Amino acid sequence: MMKIDVLTLFPEMFSGVLGHSILHKAAEKSAVQYNVVNFRDYADNKHQTVDDYPYGGGAGMVLKPQPIFDAVAALKEQAESKRTRVILLCPQGKRYDQKKAEELARVEHLIFVCGHYEGYDERIREHVVTDEISIGDYVLTGGELGAMVVIDSVVRLLPEVLGNQESHMKDSFSTGLLEHPHYTRPSDFRGMMVPEVLLQGHHKLIEEWRNKEALRRTYLRRPDLLEKIELTNDQENWLNEIKKEYE
Amino acid sequence: MMKIDVLTLFPEMFSGVLGHSILHKAAEKSAVQYNVVNFRDYADNKHQTVDDYPYGGGAGMVLKPQPIFDAVAALKEQAESKRTRVILLCPQGKRYDQKKAEELARVEHLIFVCGHYEGYDERIREHVVTDEISIGDYVLTGGELGAMVVIDSVVRLLPEVLGNQESHMKDSFSTGLLEHPHYTRPSDFRGMMVPEVLLQGHHKLIEEWRNKEALRRTYLRRPDLLEKIELTNDQENWLNEIKKEYE
Repeated sequence: MMKIDVLTLFPEMFSGVLGHSILHKAAEKSAVQYNVVNFRDYADNKHQTVDDYPYGGGAGMVLKPQPIFDAVAALKEQAESKRTRVILLCPQGKRYDQKKAEELARVEHLIFVCGHYEGYDERIREHVVTDEISIGDYVLTGGELGAMVVIDSVVRLLPEVLGNQESHMKDSFSTGLLEHPHYTRPSDFRGMMVPEVLLQGHHKLIEEWRNKEALRRTYLRRPDLLEKIELTNDQENWLNEIKKEYE
Repeated sequence: MMKIDVLTLFPEMFSGVLGHSILHKAAEKSAVQYNVVNFRDYADNKHQTVDDYPYGGGAGMVLKPQPIFDAVAALKEQAESKRTRVILLCPQGKRYDQKKAEELARVEHLIFVCGHYEGYDERIREHVVTDEISIGDYVLTGGELGAMVVIDSVVRLLPEVLGNQESHMKDSFSTGLLEHPHYTRPSDFRGMMVPEVLLQGHHKLIEEWRNKEALRRTYLRRPDLLEKIELTNDQENWLNEIKKEYE
């Protein structure tokens, strides 16, 4: 069973996300155990202060090393596994991607460190953290949402967590192309029609249509992805046809 | 005041994030109003079904157009503003970034459409949605976390939402460089020392150290960012020094 600890000053933020849907079901199935900890509880000063002014001046506060060092040490000791990764969410981190999610899904114990407005004392990054992760090039008020995103993407990869119904969602990144369009009933919704080919039950033509539309969507929206995969001869030909349509 | 509507099958997922920290304070200050709606309530069939099998076969279910078309129409009618953006969270969307956050922060009414495992009927994308957004190249179980990420990054940009204490968090993307390291007391934490220069109160040297370290971090972690900004002469010289250290 994977153990996930989260260090945050806002533990209540996690209840909705960890308590519902797949993440909740994964815990019920004992695929994962969550433990959200307020690291203020580990502050060893009288007022339980967790931040202080930055050396050298400047705006903003900085998270002190002591509470986080000691919280991580305690959580490591409690865990059965010695294979622990300590993950810091921050804009300076390495860009998160599906490959990283697959890597983390093989680890037994994850500790997430979430700051909130404050900066982190550099000694936390250097001596406690094993992975600095950014979920994208945008600024969030804290690391909490980043931690939830990473947890969701990792836990859904654990064995037995996902049923068949969700499996098709993997398509987008496993083939290297964006997904083709989907349609369901009614075939005529207020005058908006489903493409004829999908209604006629000719499987080979449907497969071909889907392959082409996946290529088209990727070409129009994320041409960078096309450079990362090797196209089949059929795909090369279709792509050339598609390109001509947009010339 | 900005109005934010969220369409989801899992409204409970949002309570923790919208009910705490900055997002909660922003609502208290009347900078924003949240409304999380279960779009199953808009299904016009007897069993309130929201999904159905895909035309052409295949695994997974597809969200039907009717409930989402009608929910969006009703929410648009309720809103005072006519400037509505309808945002779909999906891996096929345009990569989200800080520029998009700034763009959305100027809109008066945002509607987020969150699917969960299911695909979306293509007619939803074509006729209802104005912006398809992906928060990164990884797979999540649903659009809910993506919506929370976008909401957080947008709401913190609204006037009067952030106090001074959080303002330094903007650094990372506003200068085009990653942030320099931060340190706070104690200067000697279990033998791990704060750099001398930060302790001596020589402001010009501190400024220079921070500029160099921001460059160093960006060079080591995100060299792609350096290509997007114009460096000053000082920065060019420092960067050359830094590069030599790693040769």
